[in-house]
Order: sequence, then C-alpha cells, then structure tokens
Amino acid sequence: VAPLQIGDYTLESRLIMGTGGITDLAALEKALVQSGTTLTTVAMRRYSPETKTSVFSMLERLGIDVLPNTAGCYTVKDTVLTAELAREALETNLIKVEVIADEHTLLPDVIETLEATEQLADRGFTPLVYTSDDPAAALRLEQAGAAAVMPLGAPIGTGLGILNPHNIQLITSRAQVPVVLDAGIGTASEAALALELGCSAVLVASAVTRAQDPTAMAEAMRLAVEAGFHCAAAGRIPRREHALASSPAEGIISPLEDLT
Amino acid sequence: VAPLQIGDYTLESRLIMGTGGITDLAALEKALVQSGTTLTTVAMRRYSPETKTSVFSMLERLGIDVLPNTAGCYTVKDTVLTAELAREALETNLIKVEVIADEHTLLPDVIETLEATEQLADRGFTPLVYTSDDPAAALRLEQAGAAAVMPLGAPIGTGLGILNPHNIQLITSRAQVPVVLDAGIGTASEAALALELGCSAVLVASAVTRAQDPTAMAEAMRLAVEAGFHCAAAGRIPRREHALASSPAEGIISPLEDLT
Amino acid sequence: VAPLQIGDYTLESRLIMGTGGITDLAALEKALVQSGTTLTTVAMRRYSPETKTSVFSMLERLGIDVLPNTAGCYTVKDTVLTAELAREALETNLIKVEVIADEHTLLPDVIETLEATEQLADRGFTPLVYTSDDPAAALRLEQAGAAAVMPLGAPIGTGLGILNPHNIQLITSRAQVPVVLDAGIGTASEAALALELGCSAVLVASAVTRAQDPTAMAEAMRLAVEAGFHCAAAGRIPRREHALASSPAEGIISPLEDLT
Amino acid sequence: VAPLQIGDYTLESRLIMGTGGITDLAALEKALVQSGTTLTTVAMRRYSPETKTSVFSMLERLGIDVLPNTAGCYTVKDTVLTAELAREALETNLIKVEVIADEHTLLPDVIETLEATEQLADRGFTPLVYTSDDPAAALRLEQAGAAAVMPLGAPIGTGLGILNPHNIQLITSRAQVPVVLDAGIGTASEAALALELGCSAVLVASAVTRAQDPTAMAEAMRLAVEAGFHCAAAGRIPRREHALASSPAEGIISPLEDLT
Repeated sequence: VAPLQIGDYTLESRLIMGTGGITDLAALEKALVQSGTTLTTVAMRRYSPETKTSVFSMLERLGIDVLPNTAGCYTVKDTVLTAELAREALETNLIKVEVIADEHTLLPDVIETLEATEQLADRGFTPLVYTSDDPAAALRLEQAGAAAVMPLGAPIGTGLGILNPHNIQLITSRAQVPVVLDAGIGTASEAALALELGCSAVLVASAVTRAQDPTAMAEAMRLAVEAGFHCAAAGRIPRREHALASSPAEGIISPLEDLT
Repeated sequence: VAPLQIGDYTLESRLIMGTGGITDLAALEKALVQSGTTLTTVAMRRYSPETKTSVFSMLERLGIDVLPNTAGCYTVKDTVLTAELAREALETNLIKVEVIADEHTLLPDVIETLEATEQLADRGFTPLVYTSDDPAAALRLEQAGAAAVMPLGAPIGTGLGILNPHNIQLITSRAQVPVVLDAGIGTASEAALALELGCSAVLVASAVTRAQDPTAMAEAMRLAVEAGFHCAAAGRIPRREHALASSPAEGIISPLEDLT
Repeated sequence: VAPLQIGDYTLESRLIMGTGGITDLAALEKALVQSGTTLTTVAMRRYSPETKTSVFSMLERLGIDVLPNTAGCYTVKDTVLTAELAREALETNLIKVEVIADEHTLLPDVIETLEATEQLADRGFTPLVYTSDDPAAALRLEQAGAAAVMPLGAPIGTGLGILNPHNIQLITSRAQVPVVLDAGIGTASEAALALELGCSAVLVASAVTRAQDPTAMAEAMRLAVEAGFHCAAAGRIPRREHALASSPAEGIISPLEDLT
Repeated sequence: VAPLQIGDYTLESRLIMGTGGITDLAALEKALVQSGTTLTTVAMRRYSPETKTSVFSMLERLGIDVLPNTAGCYTVKDTVLTAELAREALETNLIKVEVIADEHTLLPDVIETLEATEQLADRGFTPLVYTSDDPAAALRLEQAGAAAVMPLGAPIGTGLGILNPHNIQLITSRAQVPVVLDAGIGTASEAALALELGCSAVLVASAVTRAQDPTAMAEAMRLAVEAGFHCAAAGRIPRREHALASSPAEGIISPLEDLT
C-alpha cells in the first residue's frame, strides 16, 4: 500500500486510529500495534499533563504520529484556539478540525467548520476536516484550504457503516485532496467499502476500542483497509442485472474455459 | 486464520477460487498465487485431456487442491454421473454440487439439488452444495448430507454482492456444517461481509478473473477474507440509532479518556 | 384498479388481508372495511364452530370472500388433508398453501410445498402458494399447478419489508401466473413497492392487525396498493447516477420550460 | 388528510408538484388535476410574459397556488433578487429557496442557502428552503427563519429515491417546522416512505412529468402520499429479527385467534 500525501504530511498507513473508549493502556498498545496505524488522533480539549506522560510517550515509543483534534468545540473561536494550543504543545501543523453542531447528534456543523477551516489554513495549519457527507460542502471545504476532507459514514459511535455510499462516491470523484472516511464504521467490510468508494484512508475509533476483542478488530481493520485499497486499484467487474456464467458453456472448449 | 474442516477435508485457506473467465495461463497462475487459495473449483462437464496437462499440472505444482463441480448439470442423474466421473478422474470424494434450474438465471434448483445431495452422500462423497439463500432449504441440504452449504449472495456473475444479508445470517446461525458464500461477490468488502455474517469461507470466480487486474483483485480478496474472519471473531460494537462520543466529555478526565 | 384473475377466481381488490393478531371483533370489522379488501385468509387448522358463527358471518355480511390457508401444516399429508377439510367446510376450491419448515422461522419448506401443490392441483384446487423468494422455486411451483405464487418479502411478522427486491422482480418478470407478495410487509411504502416490482397483489396481516391504529393502517395499505398499481403502469423515470435539471437552463425559454 | 400549516400559508395537499419536463399543456393540466396538488413550484429565473398567459392562467383556473422558486441561482444576491421579483410579480410571500452549488450536481449549497434564508426571512418572506439531508444544516436553516425545510432524497432528476432514510428521520424528529421531501423521488413507494419517515409533504417533478404516463403517475403519487400520511399516523409494527406468527398456535383457540 502506497503512502498518502496530505499537505506536507506523508501518511504511511491508510488506517488512522482514534483511541477513545479503551480502558487499559496495555490493551490500547496491543490494538494500536495490530492496527498497523502510523497516525492517531487525540482530543486536545481533554489534553492533560498525565496524558503526555503516559499515552504520548507510548505513541512516541511506537513511532505513531499524533493528529490533534478539536473534538468538543462548538464554535470557530474555540476551534482555532484549540488548534493553536495543539500546535504549541505537539509541534505539528496537522489538525483534525471538528466543529460539532450539538452534543446529542455530534454531527459536524458545516457552516462553522468552513469558517474554521479558512482561518486555520490562513494560519499555516494542515487541516484535515471532519464534515457531513454533503458533496457540495466537501468541495467548499477543499476550496477553503482543507488538506483532506473527512466525511462521516454515519454519526459517531453508531456503527451504522456508510449510510450513503452514493454521496461518498460523489465526494471522492470530485476531490483534489485526499478523502478520509471518518465516523460510523463498525466492521471490516465497511472499512473496505470506504476505500472501494474512492476514499484514500479510513479513521476508526469505537469500532476497535469498544469491540469485544480490540486487538483482533484492529487486525481486521488493517487487513480490510488494505483489501479495499487493492480492490479499488484492481477495477471491479461491472454490476449486471442478469447472470453470467463464469465459464460459458457454448463455444470451443479450451483448457482454460474448462474452469469455473 | 484457522483451517476449516469440511467433512474429511481440511481447507487451509478461507478463499476458494474459481478460474473461469481468465484467458491467459500465466495470468491465472499469478492470480491463484496472490489469492492464497488452497482449493480451486473445476467444471467437470468441460473436463478434457488438455485441461489435465495444463491447468491441473499447474494446480498440482502450486499445491492447490481441486474441487470438481457439476456446473452445467440440470438433472439429478447428470449430476451424480458427473460426480462419479470426477471422483474417478481426480481421485477425490470432494464434489461441489451444482444443479442449475435454467441457463438464463443459472440459479440452483433446490429440489433437484436436495435429491442429488442425498444420493451423493449415500455414495460416499463429501458434497459441498451450491444453493439459494433460502434458510429452510439450506437446513434440509445439511440434513441430507451436505458437508458444506454454499448459498449464493446474488446470481452468478452479477457482482451484485450479498442481496439478502438477513438470510445469510439466518443460515449461518443455524448450520452445523460450514457455510461457504458462493456467487455474486464483486468486491473485497462483500467478501469480508460474508465472513462477518458467519460464513466460514467464500468462493469467488468472475470477481477476480474478470477484474481489470486479476492479480490485484486476488490479493484484495485474500485480505478481505482474513479481515472478515478476524472481524467476526472480534465481536463488533452494537449498531446504535444515536451518536455516542468515542470519548465522553463528562466525568473526570483520565489519561485514556483524553483520546478520541 | 382492474380486477385480477387467479385461476377461476376474480379478485376485485389488490389487497388480501389476514386477520390474526386483532383482539376485538368490532375493530377487526372496521379495519377490514377500511382496507377495501375482498378476500381474507383464514387458518383452517384453528377452524372452529364459534369462528363460523362470528367471523365468517361478519365476512359474509361484508361481502368478503374467504381464502382458507393451511398455516400450521408441516407435511404434505397434513396440508392436503387440511385443504380438503377447508373445501368441504367453505365450499371453495381456493386454498392458500402453506407448508412450514419449522416453528421458529415459520419459513416455507419449498420441497414439501412443491409436492403439496402438485397434489392439490391434481385434486382440482386453485392453489395460491406461499413460498420463499427463490425465483427458481417460484417457477417450479407455477409449473406444478400454482394459480398464484406468493413469495415472502421477509419472515412472517418481522415487518422487515422486502429484503430482496431483486428476487421479487426476477419472479414477476418470468411468472405466467399472478405473483402476490406475502409476509414481511410492515408499512405502506413496502406494499407499494411490491406492486412496483411487478407483483399483482399484496397480502398483509400483522402490519395492520398489530398496528397501533389498525383502521388507519388498513386505509394506508389500501391506498398504497393502489398507488403501486398505478405507478407500475405509469412507467417510472430511469434511475440516473447524475443529476438532471427538471427544467434545463439552456435553450430557448418556452412557457412550459419555465417551470421546474 | 389534514391541511399543513407552513408559516402563514395553509397547504391543503401533501403533494407539491413541479412541472418542468412536460411538453404539452393539456397533458400538464391532466397530470396536475390527477395529482390533487394545490401548490405548484415555478422557476422565476425563467419567468416570462408568455408563461403568465398560458401556465399561470391555467393554474389559476385550476385553483392551484404558485410557489415561486429561485432555481438557477448560485449566489445569495441573485437569490434574494429573484425572490423579490417573484413577490412583486406573483403577490406572494412564499418563496422556495434554491441556491445551487454547481450545474453538474445541482446540489444545494448549504452555506449560501443559510445566508439567503436569513435575509429572506428578514424581508418578510415565508421561505421553504431546499437543502441537503444534513440534519445539522437543516436545524440551522430552521433557526435562520425557514418556514419549512426541504431536504433532498437524492440529487435532482436521478430518481434514486431516499438515499439516506436515517438522515431524513433525524431531521423530522427534531424539526419544529414542516419537513418537505424534495428531489430524488422516482416512484410511489418512495413518496410514501418520505411521509413514513416523518415528512409532512413531498415535492415531485420529473418523477411525474417525465414518466411514460404522467397522468397515471400523478395519481400514483397522490395515493402514495395519502398512504404514507395514514401509515405514519397509524403506528407501524416494530421491526423484528425473528418471525412471529400472525396467529400463535399455542393457547386456547378463540374465534379471532383462528384467523391469520
């Protein structure tokens, strides 16, 4: 699997991990290692010195980069402030922009998100922008300076998968920047589907950390993302309404035609 | 990935390959190798000496077992006769039972299939039985002696994926023998889904052999099947109608809660 | 809506009702009237003298015909016996053939169903045959003498709708006899969809009788079936992957082009 | 079907029609009458004197109100200007706000749409606002003064139906103003589904005007919307994973329990 360029940043793995929801540091480490991820997202609003000394040191030891996010922000102002704090604390221009509309749906507010993206791009950040699956909004975010757009498959934590594959495909077919599917993924097949729809990478959090066996699910997600990557490159057969024999019965039987 | 026991036979790979539709022997070999398959199905009705000397010798060289099938049979009598010819020619009790209803849909005829399965089981075969996704029919096939039931996801060659996941899950939840998804798969995510629904293995043919890049698709399918296998074992998060923060905002902020 | 010919029987309404699950005779009457149905199915295995004097007299008063069914039968023998009892008691050749595979799924057993259909057709019945959505099995039932085939949308009482529209459409596209969707319907849109997929009529039971307001749901189902009937006849627009303005902007503006 | 209050306006029919795509004035009249609509949307950007004398006089004669729309507008400024021209020409405060992102997808631009809605509400309009199915955006439009929010089911003219029922249901569950499904509908069942998901009304254009038989499709849509309305009110049965007999076999057989 080829590396992915996001602005100045080179992402080696096509799977980005979030780690909320896991309750044991050793278990988290096992899952991270098994996922093969090289980039993990961290909520800066809940950043604390203790985090630095435990999780961050673990990530550093594992060679996993940190993608700070602005989870918990509801306004442009808070989002920009949180991003600046993250840059100072972590010495990275990468920022995952999350501006949430309300605490019940946790859906992104695309209007605030657009404004925040513009300001962050102006300030020299490399914004990876969480958004709805609205293709028109995704295009505007890219025009506003998003280094990657991150449409949701379904609301955070629902595990409902990709509710609107048509929209995701429309986004990826027009985007000039990488599209990373974010939120909603519950299973490996859904992660593979994201790549098949043209996404460049996938972010999963709860699907792994809240699985009954996070380590096994991390491995499943790693394999699924690779599977989807190769599938997208391989060029699938067309969908057909009617059956087609894998080996037609008519015609001269050549050795290879013998096999179904 | 653990081996799978089908009657007396031990299947090492969870991906079974069909090879109809590929036109170049070297290309076929590359795809087979990349798929990691250890079992390949062959249509006996189109069996010829030339096949033996080219494809079969290749399969033998690659260490891939042959699963003869009865594709092209429309009656119990033809099916049993074809199976006997296969056993004699290939020295295996394995037989993939296909009794087709008509040449337009290529759908299995479950009534004839049931009768053929009974007779073949009585004759000492290990029948892997291609069938519709009707859960009641699948159970009857198992009772009649099927060593594995092989429901379709969609009609052969359509690439429509798994049209009725509810039925597949109902079949796997009740089966005492392995369930192998057969027909309809077009992409990696669909192969992974089969395993997530409780299937023990997947058979793909056209999806790989007719892909633009069969080798890349073979690799995608191999990874997808492994991904689905681990996903099924890992225990997915429940589907929820409403959002759930991967890291809740309320409560005391512990180091691990800091991460999303 | 045109009447439907099923063997010798002329069905005036495209909605067939089942009435199990309702607990109040007056409420049942209101729902039946509101549904506009002219045919109601009755389980003969639970037939009793009291039924005759209450429900049957009501149906007679309402001018609704009775379609006896063999619900609760698991074997060919029981099914045929039940049908004969129904014919004697109700003086009708109509019989809804139900041969159930097991009490947990209540799925039809297509193998027994086929045999029962053959015998009943031979005995001069007009069999309306409950079956799975397996298109090959549906065709065999027709060949065996079914006057109508009645594939399920989903298992009885689940309200899951039509799980595999592709199969239903395949059945209707090939059938020479009416196709009546039976089981699984929960909402009006699903009933309309059945007609749009080419079904000639729909049978609903729990969807109405167990709704919070059976009378309102009966009206919804009546309207939905009519809507689907007209929709199927009207010839829908093709599905398109890309947008198409309802009134194109380019070109000379004629009065009618002004409207969107 | 009860009337619907949208701001100061009372909508008698739950079906709003668009008329683009039809090429014969008499055919249009027949379809409008058959649809039972009381409100028809007109693209003001293509407004001309000839339109007034032909279509508008017909609508007036039929007693159908006109809902001017801003189709073809890409900016806030153009949208507001078009709305003012419509108000002057048609003497109505009703305006269907459409601000399109680009001519290829015809998707709404929710950022411009929000700004336009605010301005139009300030100017005393009753804005019915076309938008994506993003629930967070829909809520902001309502807060900005939308008298109704009109999320799309799928891109205009595609006939793909409701691509994301989950989002539509989330919108309707939170909205304090009517939700009118707009764009994407191709069949009657999809129109019924919109109501079942909690929408108060449906707008269809191409589905009727480009159908093979627009009059028959208009009737189908009228019935479907009524069906969906009653279905939503009736309270559907819950979806169940497992079968439930419409008349349980166990227990004492009462007359009503006899029926399935």
